[in-house]
Amino acid sequence: MKPFKQLGLIGCGLMGGSFALALKRAKMVERVVGYSKSSRTAEQAKRMGVIDDAAASVLQTVPGADLVLIAVPVAATADVFKAIQFGLHADALVLDVGSTKQNVIDVAQKIFGAAPPNFVPSHPIAGKERAGVEAAQADLYAGKRVILTPTEHTHASAIALATEVWQGIGMQVSTMSAECHDQVLAAVSHLPHLTAFSYMHSIAEQSNAAQLLAMAGPGFKDFTRIAASSPDVWVDILLANREEVLQQSRHMLTSLARFEDAMRSNNTDALRQLITSASKVRGSWTLNQTELASDV
Amino acid sequence: MKPFKQLGLIGCGLMGGSFALALKRAKMVERVVGYSKSSRTAEQAKRMGVIDDAAASVLQTVPGADLVLIAVPVAATADVFKAIQFGLHADALVLDVGSTKQNVIDVAQKIFGAAPPNFVPSHPIAGKERAGVEAAQADLYAGKRVILTPTEHTHASAIALATEVWQGIGMQVSTMSAECHDQVLAAVSHLPHLTAFSYMHSIAEQSNAAQLLAMAGPGFKDFTRIAASSPDVWVDILLANREEVLQQSRHMLTSLARFEDAMRSNNTDALRQLITSASKVRGSWTLNQTELASDV
Repeated sequence: MKPFKQLGLIGCGLMGGSFALALKRAKMVERVVGYSKSSRTAEQAKRMGVIDDAAASVLQTVPGADLVLIAVPVAATADVFKAIQFGLHADALVLDVGSTKQNVIDVAQKIFGAAPPNFVPSHPIAGKERAGVEAAQADLYAGKRVILTPTEHTHASAIALATEVWQGIGMQVSTMSAECHDQVLAAVSHLPHLTAFSYMHSIAEQSNAAQLLAMAGPGFKDFTRIAASSPDVWVDILLANREEVLQQSRHMLTSLARFEDAMRSNNTDALRQLITSASKVRGSWTLNQTELASDV
Repeated sequence: MKPFKQLGLIGCGLMGGSFALALKRAKMVERVVGYSKSSRTAEQAKRMGVIDDAAASVLQTVPGADLVLIAVPVAATADVFKAIQFGLHADALVLDVGSTKQNVIDVAQKIFGAAPPNFVPSHPIAGKERAGVEAAQADLYAGKRVILTPTEHTHASAIALATEVWQGIGMQVSTMSAECHDQVLAAVSHLPHLTAFSYMHSIAEQSNAAQLLAMAGPGFKDFTRIAASSPDVWVDILLANREEVLQQSRHMLTSLARFEDAMRSNNTDALRQLITSASKVRGSWTLNQTELASDV
């Protein structure tokens, strides 16, 4: 792949910063012009070599850019599209990193009339509990999966180029509809976050919370890691994908009720069967296993 | 500390096997005689150097033993006490590794009349999702915490010696009542397991489970790690500590309902406040932080 001349980076946090570092390491871009709403973040990004120049506004990231990455909380996407709509080069490939996709596409359609043909909605399933440019790292995306959710208006050439970009920084690429994406992610990511937040909240509310936290062990550590995630990011995601998340919560509560019924009735066999089914599925699961179906 | 002459090891699985390996590495024991209900496991334990000799029965582990470790699923503890009650040397220190403590003490009291003065009920908060002697490792306990729950009949000298043993293999020792222990563990370990099992079950029940599992990422990986835990172990724990676990589940569901109410009413501020409180608590938590109170 020929390197891009200029990446317009909108949002210089963990996701955007890591993307720029990864592209630079892979020699896939010549120059990065980045914007952050915090001038302190932009300065830090420049010091770290994440960006070469800081843009004075969102709009100022797009002149000369043949690749644009929107890496802001999903609720801020509309403002970004509005800001760049008359400055964007028609041939520039536009990607985002939003954890929900239907709402991003809805917003693009509303602002542009139809989703732009060179916009390839993307969700790289990578991250960590620490946010901010300080946490950015060139290998954040390597070995992880990205889901592309093109619309009927997306050009095939844009999908192909987006695939090259994500593969170029080490990602496995899957493609599905935005609707499927939002349902799948509600199940495997958004509900676990909601549950981990709720569980941590219930511990913190108890009068002996300090004692509880002092006694917590390695199981607690892993189970609650995602509860430390960024509030700004997760308020947006849980609201943007509310109906799917609430649906998945109902599924989980139905399962929990079956476990608790078996406990209350002291039904050892039923409880063993339930735990065994869960344990077997998790025991045979591995990260990035071969995808079994191309769509849901 | 003078090394023990002989460890009588009842149960040669992950917990028992790792204990024997740790004692041997620290040169705290001269000989280990172990029993497993599976002769294949006993042979494997001998091959691995976990035990020096296999005992033909539970009772045969105790003659000559100045240290006895009961490392069986908690529901099997009563049978172990019955088997050893007339063979146990009066001066032998007896420890267990049960994840629930009040039921273990109740069983001891029933069988021995009163809890034996040299029995120090212990719960080392260590483990991993793989079970069996093959998974045993000398450093499983190092750097982790153990909770001792002595009764009013436990000798101070036995508590002191038990403390030396656990510290000798690298553990931090805490002491509290069995009742407190069971409440604390329900909150920080048993409910997370029940929740992780229920969540995995709800995923496995969905018609597109294979697709969901293929798309799951690093957050899912950590959140569900404990769902792969041993069904035999966890049936026992969830039933033995049922009331406390159900109580903790009610706490969590109350918190979850608050999150979902904020989502349904699209109350951004309330949702951000809830997530922030959870995120802050988890963000400042570390494993084995200084214990803030000696009891709950």
